[in-house]
Amino acid sequence: MQDLVDRARALDEGDPLASFLERFAVDDRIYLDGNSLGRMPRTTADRISEVLGEWAEDAVIGWERWIDLGVEIGNELAPLIGASPGEVAVGDQTSVNLFKLASAALEASDGPDILSDEGNFPSDLHVLEHVANRAGGDLILLPEDPTSDAIASAINGSIGLASFSHVSYRSGRLFDAESVTAAAHRSGAMVLWDLSHSVGALPIGLDAWTVDLAVGCTYKYLNGGPGSPAFLFVREDLHTRLDQPIHGWFGHEDQFGFATAFSPSPSIRRFLVGTPSVIAMAATREGIRLTAEAGIEATRAKAVALTSLFIEAIDRSGHADDIEVVTPRDPTQRGAHVAIRHPAALEVSRALRRRDVIPDFRSPDIIRFGFAPLTTTFRDVVGAAMILDSTLDDGFEVTERPSHLGVT
Amino acid sequence: MQDLVDRARALDEGDPLASFLERFAVDDRIYLDGNSLGRMPRTTADRISEVLGEWAEDAVIGWERWIDLGVEIGNELAPLIGASPGEVAVGDQTSVNLFKLASAALEASDGPDILSDEGNFPSDLHVLEHVANRAGGDLILLPEDPTSDAIASAINGSIGLASFSHVSYRSGRLFDAESVTAAAHRSGAMVLWDLSHSVGALPIGLDAWTVDLAVGCTYKYLNGGPGSPAFLFVREDLHTRLDQPIHGWFGHEDQFGFATAFSPSPSIRRFLVGTPSVIAMAATREGIRLTAEAGIEATRAKAVALTSLFIEAIDRSGHADDIEVVTPRDPTQRGAHVAIRHPAALEVSRALRRRDVIPDFRSPDIIRFGFAPLTTTFRDVVGAAMILDSTLDDGFEVTERPSHLGVT
Repeated sequence: MQDLVDRARALDEGDPLASFLERFAVDDRIYLDGNSLGRMPRTTADRISEVLGEWAEDAVIGWERWIDLGVEIGNELAPLIGASPGEVAVGDQTSVNLFKLASAALEASDGPDILSDEGNFPSDLHVLEHVANRAGGDLILLPEDPTSDAIASAINGSIGLASFSHVSYRSGRLFDAESVTAAAHRSGAMVLWDLSHSVGALPIGLDAWTVDLAVGCTYKYLNGGPGSPAFLFVREDLHTRLDQPIHGWFGHEDQFGFATAFSPSPSIRRFLVGTPSVIAMAATREGIRLTAEAGIEATRAKAVALTSLFIEAIDRSGHADDIEVVTPRDPTQRGAHVAIRHPAALEVSRALRRRDVIPDFRSPDIIRFGFAPLTTTFRDVVGAAMILDSTLDDGFEVTERPSHLGVT
Repeated sequence: MQDLVDRARALDEGDPLASFLERFAVDDRIYLDGNSLGRMPRTTADRISEVLGEWAEDAVIGWERWIDLGVEIGNELAPLIGASPGEVAVGDQTSVNLFKLASAALEASDGPDILSDEGNFPSDLHVLEHVANRAGGDLILLPEDPTSDAIASAINGSIGLASFSHVSYRSGRLFDAESVTAAAHRSGAMVLWDLSHSVGALPIGLDAWTVDLAVGCTYKYLNGGPGSPAFLFVREDLHTRLDQPIHGWFGHEDQFGFATAFSPSPSIRRFLVGTPSVIAMAATREGIRLTAEAGIEATRAKAVALTSLFIEAIDRSGHADDIEVVTPRDPTQRGAHVAIRHPAALEVSRALRRRDVIPDFRSPDIIRFGFAPLTTTFRDVVGAAMILDSTLDDGFEVTERPSHLGVT
């Protein structure tokens, strides 16, 4: 694989995003789990210190500058997902945002059912099933990673909402959001995309694709920190048509009027609820700014190059026959992580960690390698493939099946 | 008022909690809005630095230590509210937690209506009204600050849930949670207390009072920081009887089994939803620890002394006839803030701010003075009363009625 090593070196030397690596806290390990938790920007600590200074000095008066953070940071995120100013708000967790928007969508739709697929993130499926049940409908699940045609065929009059992950957390497969959205609209259903595994990794065109609704987290490719606040998107013309079920003062049209009756803001604010953590929001904002500065087109180009190089290295390794590449080989059909299948995936994942390669295990037999473009080098890619190859030389018996190694 | 100044000095000298003042970032201003946003513990920055270090060094592996933070911090908070280990979880915002618990309670109750009062915090009323409406019921509002007898009389068979703020955000009035809870139980209703304005200010006996449910924020007397994560309490025997509507992976009995079907944890975890901000949680924990260290009995004793001294100073001021003390004069019936009514409340609040006294205005005519026991001195109390008195000497015309000056 010497030619791959040489190629990786050349790619790193020519990488227009190479300078971003030193802006994150990284070390000598090969960290390939940025699709679970992105690395820490070195400037995040400074941004948090600033907010702590505001808290210490201004105390409650600090709210004069913090009160609109959810919308302000949403506006900074908007260009990364093809949204317009005023269509995105940051706050709450992804599952809470999904609950709010899915509930609102079903209430505004004719059909009581929600369509998704078995490969969608389990927390999403849990939320969606209960939302559908409360509306008197069902969650209808297609097999994992359905084609756009399969989705289009499954959308009928009983489907009020179709909701999928834009990139599958398991397989890394990229859904064709534009065609699925169009198919749903033809049948009168709304669409809600979970962008957690695509935001910050590839260009997203929510407005161009006339997407209705979207949610996503900011702690993966956006490097907002563990459990950082999530975001939600609602297309502008839907704002006043949708009523989300958690009526809180941050969603009121006159938040400080303190009226007992709820009167929702006509803007994206109506989808907010309570007081967000200003400290957590500062970290989120810093992560978003770094990705925005890098530029999503350059980020996507590097993600394609990183994942392509990894698949090539796997294919050329001595254990290629033992490994199934689950992620689509066509780069236009995948995100920024590559999943492989191996019967001893758990044991191999653990052995890799001992050798300072950090992948992610997904039960029962999947290993995910995430290639966060701002913090992964091409020599990381080839290094990981070579260490995987030599690790597999050791042979593994499948001895146990606990459910996880790390957190998505 | 020279005798009050002397008394304040003596009280400060004898204050067993005096040493806590230097553990917070304070300055020369008289900050009397700790009931909106508590001051910053000086050690919070250190705790956040530790978490940032864990993120930088461990990245995703940090979740091995973070995954149970919501319950761990809940267990630290439990003694402050008279709860048992395993009954409290920290995460989400107060309004989101209120939504979860109120929805679960109504689903488990016979009656579809919710009882509250017009003085409850507006965001609570917004949440509760929509929860009741979704259940086919109504939010029934008693006049502000009802007596326990008035509440007991209003609870009938249609009431599935009674929900009030333990201490009113406006008047500072302390509800008799034990008697109201008993009255609700006699009529087959559940009770949900919002502890935002009592937690950290006075002893709370949730288990002793057989309270069903409670929520609260951590950014007031608990000094968790702006928008810090909230908490929820569910009495242990109710855990498996209640199904909250936002089914997320942190509530699953096998979070990392990644089953498509939701199976709720039998523990307090079932009331959690998604991934909490680890950075925000670290700040919250530090605030809770300081209050726990001070001891809630000593904290309450100081709150009573501070508020009593302020009311005495108001009563003896030259403008006593212009001011109505809204908060109960009986210290057993109030929390740690004192609200006064004055026709020029807004203008007076602004003038006080210019003189480095920070109160809180509530439309149309209320000024709240919050006496967070860990960060307020007795000389602050007398100083504020004297500055209020001299400010009122200037006279004020009521010129405008915007809705707020600061954030609760």
